[in-house]
Amino acid sequence: MMRVTIFVSLKEGVLDPQGKAVERSLHSLGFAEVQEVRMGKYMELSLNLPSREEAEKRVREMCARLLANPVIEDYRFEIE
Amino acid sequence: MMRVTIFVSLKEGVLDPQGKAVERSLHSLGFAEVQEVRMGKYMELSLNLPSREEAEKRVREMCARLLANPVIEDYRFEIE
Repeated sequence: MMRVTIFVSLKEGVLDPQGKAVERSLHSLGFAEVQEVRMGKYMELSLNLPSREEAEKRVREMCARLLANPVIEDYRFEIE
Repeated sequence: MMRVTIFVSLKEGVLDPQGKAVERSLHSLGFAEVQEVRMGKYMELSLNLPSREEAEKRVREMCARLLANPVIEDYRFEIE
């Protein structure tokens, strides 16, 4: 059993309204030192597969088909 | 200027309906090897602060006041 963490973020240049909202909220709470907030999501999952190579291949398929939107998002992943 | 990444996840034992929905979708796409999907979010931000110690203190304050809900969420962060 392998543990995988997949990180999905907006591509550089894509507007991030959620990040902007968090930045404004932090400023209004007095955290004036905060700049350039960008939000992302991550998924942790277990894979019942025999090899790391197989896991990498399958995770790439999952990202392409469901987990990331290639038009606006990048992804990376770690396998343990 | 310091770069900080803050990871926010649901505490163990807290139901994760988004993770469950992703798990079901992956199964219906044929990824039967997937188990125990948990979703989290992360934030990347820049901090205009002079020291790492100061940054750690301020990030903890941000998490306590806005970024994480201590009842159901845990957080951790990395400073570069």
